[in-house]
Formats: sequence, C-alpha cells, structure tokens
Amino acid sequence: MAKKGMLLVGHGSKLPYNKDLVETTARLIAEKTDEYIVRAGFMSLNTPTVQEQLEAFRKEKIEMLVVVPLFLARGVHIEKDIPAILGLPEGARAGTFHMNGKDVPLVYASPIGSDPLLAELMLKNAAEAIAELER
Amino acid sequence: MAKKGMLLVGHGSKLPYNKDLVETTARLIAEKTDEYIVRAGFMSLNTPTVQEQLEAFRKEKIEMLVVVPLFLARGVHIEKDIPAILGLPEGARAGTFHMNGKDVPLVYASPIGSDPLLAELMLKNAAEAIAELER
Repeated sequence: MAKKGMLLVGHGSKLPYNKDLVETTARLIAEKTDEYIVRAGFMSLNTPTVQEQLEAFRKEKIEMLVVVPLFLARGVHIEKDIPAILGLPEGARAGTFHMNGKDVPLVYASPIGSDPLLAELMLKNAAEAIAELER
Repeated sequence: MAKKGMLLVGHGSKLPYNKDLVETTARLIAEKTDEYIVRAGFMSLNTPTVQEQLEAFRKEKIEMLVVVPLFLARGVHIEKDIPAILGLPEGARAGTFHMNGKDVPLVYASPIGSDPLLAELMLKNAAEAIAELER
C-alpha cells in the first residue's frame, strides 16, 4: 500500500540546534509509524530546503503529502512563506501536490500550538532539571 | 506544604500567537498539577516580562523556582540572555533565587528539544489536518 509523505518543515538557524531538533524529530516520527515516509526540510540557513524535499517527494510512491511545520506558533512563515512555497492560497489548509505523473492531495498541518502534550513536555523538562540538581 | 514556582519563559512576538501559546500552556500546566505555582513571562515585545514575574515570585511562598523556557531549541536566548536575567553564569543549570527574606534553589530547565512527545505532537497535528480534509 502506498504511504503518505510527511514533510517536517524547520525554520533553520546559523546554530546547529534547530537542524538537530527537526532532523531528530523526523527520525523519531519514522520510528513510531510506518504510515509515512518522513523528510525534513528548512525555510532558511540549513539544507535540504523545503523546495529540495518537495522535489524528492515527487519521485516517491505516496498517496498524499502532509506538510507539518515544526514551529511553536503561527507567524509570518506559517501564514505566508510556507503556503507560498506550497502553492497554497493564504489560509488554505489543503490543495494538490503535483507528482511526476499524477496529482495527490496536499495537506498543510498546524504548528505545535497549545496542546496538553506540550504542557506535559514542559513538566517533564522541569522534573529532569530538578532531578539533575538533586543528583 | 510550600509549592515550587515555575516560570515559563516565552520569546514574545508582535503577533498574538506566541503570547497565547505560552499563557495557554501555563494554564494547562497549572490544571495538570498542584506541585507548582505557574507564571508566564516574556523576553521581549510582550508583558509581563521575565523580570516582572521574578519580582512576583519573590512574594510567593515557594521552596524552589524552576525556570522553563518555552523555546524549541537552544540558541542565544537560552544560552546567554535568560541566564543573564537569572544571574546564572553561562552553562549553569542551577543557582540561587533571592526571595524577600530567604534564598531558595533556582533551577534552569532545557527548552523543548527532541523528545518522543514532540514527535507524537507532530503526528497528532498531521492526523488532525488529514481528518479535516476528509470532513
């Protein structure tokens, strides 16, 4: 059965931490599920770029492309820059991805946003820092 | 029993989304646990500032202050700016918080970083966007 493609989009940074975060998260997602072929691409300063990864997905056997921005919250990149690269009108959450030979649905997911899982992550980071203090 | 203080530090933004995210996450954390008094403060562009919230914590009954940056990854804010405000040397993960009258431990937690919970959150956002398409 054809998989879905997941393009994890990172902001990019001169420092190595954003790229590490996005690529490690892509790897963790790929380990968790067989549903997706996962690739990471960057808006700026790091490679592969979003455009390069879209090009790579055109050659994969996928039945759908889901673009997931690894950003904390909405902002100019989320609302304007990424939609422009994807050929989506501003505000659109879905469109079409033109593969080599066929078209598949393109879905544009939300950034992290407020979520109980994020609250849990903050509690976990707090607990780890306290545990380190007590060691 | 005295609680711990948790200062959730946000980047701040001209747009409303970062402030919303940080304040909603602070609320979600407070709903999840009685262990902490939770406050949100911002590095720039939004209020209350980090400094204002430190001042507010000086008047609370807390036995420890944990500072948790709601940032994706390490960077200049995490490595230099926040430690400077906290009076921590660069690289230090713990120090002392001077309350009105007594000193308590100060703990500086890590930003989000790569974590299986973050991978899960990305998968959840992808699934929600696909479900929306199919509605």
